[in-house]
Amino acid sequence: MKGKMKFGLNIPTQLVFGAGELRNLSTMRLPGKKALIVISAGTSMKRLGYLDRLKEQLDKAGVESVTFDKILPNPIKSHVMEGTQMCLDNKCDFVIGLGGGSSIDTAKAIAITAHMGGDFWEYVQGGTGGGKKVTGALPIVAIPTTAGTGTEIDLWGVITNEETHEKMGFGNRHIYPTLAIVDPELMLSVPPALTAYQGFDAFFHAAEGYINKAHSPISDLYALEAVRLLYKYLPVAVNDGNNLWARTKVAWASTLAGMVESTSGCTGEHAMEHALSALHPELPHGAGLIALSKAYFKTFKNDTMKRYMKMAEKMTQHKSARPGDFLDALAIMKRECKVDKIKLSEYGFTIADVDALADNAIATGSAMFDGDPRFLTREEIINIFVDTIRED
Amino acid sequence: MKGKMKFGLNIPTQLVFGAGELRNLSTMRLPGKKALIVISAGTSMKRLGYLDRLKEQLDKAGVESVTFDKILPNPIKSHVMEGTQMCLDNKCDFVIGLGGGSSIDTAKAIAITAHMGGDFWEYVQGGTGGGKKVTGALPIVAIPTTAGTGTEIDLWGVITNEETHEKMGFGNRHIYPTLAIVDPELMLSVPPALTAYQGFDAFFHAAEGYINKAHSPISDLYALEAVRLLYKYLPVAVNDGNNLWARTKVAWASTLAGMVESTSGCTGEHAMEHALSALHPELPHGAGLIALSKAYFKTFKNDTMKRYMKMAEKMTQHKSARPGDFLDALAIMKRECKVDKIKLSEYGFTIADVDALADNAIATGSAMFDGDPRFLTREEIINIFVDTIRED
Repeated sequence: MKGKMKFGLNIPTQLVFGAGELRNLSTMRLPGKKALIVISAGTSMKRLGYLDRLKEQLDKAGVESVTFDKILPNPIKSHVMEGTQMCLDNKCDFVIGLGGGSSIDTAKAIAITAHMGGDFWEYVQGGTGGGKKVTGALPIVAIPTTAGTGTEIDLWGVITNEETHEKMGFGNRHIYPTLAIVDPELMLSVPPALTAYQGFDAFFHAAEGYINKAHSPISDLYALEAVRLLYKYLPVAVNDGNNLWARTKVAWASTLAGMVESTSGCTGEHAMEHALSALHPELPHGAGLIALSKAYFKTFKNDTMKRYMKMAEKMTQHKSARPGDFLDALAIMKRECKVDKIKLSEYGFTIADVDALADNAIATGSAMFDGDPRFLTREEIINIFVDTIRED
Repeated sequence: MKGKMKFGLNIPTQLVFGAGELRNLSTMRLPGKKALIVISAGTSMKRLGYLDRLKEQLDKAGVESVTFDKILPNPIKSHVMEGTQMCLDNKCDFVIGLGGGSSIDTAKAIAITAHMGGDFWEYVQGGTGGGKKVTGALPIVAIPTTAGTGTEIDLWGVITNEETHEKMGFGNRHIYPTLAIVDPELMLSVPPALTAYQGFDAFFHAAEGYINKAHSPISDLYALEAVRLLYKYLPVAVNDGNNLWARTKVAWASTLAGMVESTSGCTGEHAMEHALSALHPELPHGAGLIALSKAYFKTFKNDTMKRYMKMAEKMTQHKSARPGDFLDALAIMKRECKVDKIKLSEYGFTIADVDALADNAIATGSAMFDGDPRFLTREEIINIFVDTIRED
């Protein structure tokens, strides 16, 4: 039998998608009576009025709330613990993540720790994580204000342990958000460069999930649609941030890519990026992925030719006869999104870092490397880092 | 803003898909300790060994069971009530539907009535149904042995009230199966004509859901993939029933079409078919749909031109320039599946029936007509019945 036709699907999250939907939150089934709202340390959620809009809706629904507003772009373990304490002290019975992936992922981590007790790192698998089984979590409501992570509809989170310098993914089915409200209106204010970084994060969730050995007919369906939509609409959203139609299409593609993460998964590219941004946390995740992508995807060009051609066809809407068409289309997309000139040297990376980067990526991301179309040797991983850092 | 970009998605069912998966049931999370197994009055589930295979797996998992084996091809209300009594007498805490749509739909109806109490018809909306709100149901495990209804992953069922001659759909989110095991091995023994009828049922779930006014980006994704797969593989499965690869593709398309029913919905064609098979229950549901489809889809040819062309492109893999291409492709597919010569006269229908058929369809299926691309007048509905019955 050709291909793989044994697979599962089980995404329990209730998705409510559409411009303006946050204004309808009070009419939705909410999973508790007192919420811990998790937002970033930045001012945007307050300045843009999103926090007030959320609180007003909770009020209308008769739900109390307290707000934890300390989350950094690369969310850290100590904030998970601080938020957990706040959640317990205030007897919150569910957690709302409002913002980018960092706020939602922290909300997920708090939901685990508040329910399970103890230290969050006990529940992380791999690296120095304790590997304890998560058997439950507080219900989570995810309200993304960026289009990229897909965390609103997946069972994953990423938290950095600032003591051990590990940026680790964690995942289990108890952290699927109960409710995800994807309201593209909330994304109109994201500046061009961030729009591109985040959109490419979604793109790579889809592309990695498509070439992942764990791909299935359902993850393929989500992935190819996300790839198609992002190639078409991400440049529009980057170059005209007020275009709500393009924002909406990009938001939907990002949610689809989250569904890819829930049915297939990320590959070595994401593991390598986590090593990059663990070393220099100022590097935006999406920028790291964009920088890695040329060398990473070139490596598998002859290993999964049909899948590269299929992605190229979805992107360009032309028949593809060679896997390199995907690499070409990817280069065009970067240019159109004005992210074809990212230099890792500007973030402080040098060739001298590559050994440590490879060690970190392998130590913390082995499960993702397992998804690669074929096994990458340590030398190949080093070569990808070398090519990426040299690129200029 | 063009198109519709406000929508929801929430299919909580855990799907386990793949040839041979029934043999792994004992390793899956089961929702209870004592099951009512619902199977048809026919001998096939026993003769083919599927019932024993299921019981063996339940045994291995330490789950007790009792079997209710009376379900007819058009399942009836009195069997829902008899099964409910059996479920209550034996203190079953979940219901397993093993078989075609009739067994699974009856399992869903029993799950409602055993949980809610009273008579099943009290919970049916529309027609002579009592319209009471369903606030819960016993957990349901669905194991389809045919590829067509998609009921294993949707929130709908169809039961005939044999006293009032109503064939009524019922639906609510409590009857999403907790677990759906779609094992194409169980479908190898379905004879050619039934394979075609059931496969076309799935095809029309997808095609109706695609032209339904309630369509959304997610239902479109599922629908077009189901339409593509069925056009390609249903003729193979009909003409070579032992081809497990084609059976698998058809089974997956049918489940996808079920996901269309959960995200968009059926339209007037299904309402009209329910009227046909309420009058002559010997008419297989799929055969009724196939007979209706020519006149039905012709009616909307100019109302949803782009969507007809898109379906034609997915089917033929050629660019389409006219909506009639869909009607042509549909005619080819019927011929290849050897169902292009269904005559309703052979089931006893005459032109004299059309008024009663229209009345029944409108009375019991108004919600489905609401999904049509545009409002059909009673006269148009009558004309579709006339064209369908005259067709020979």
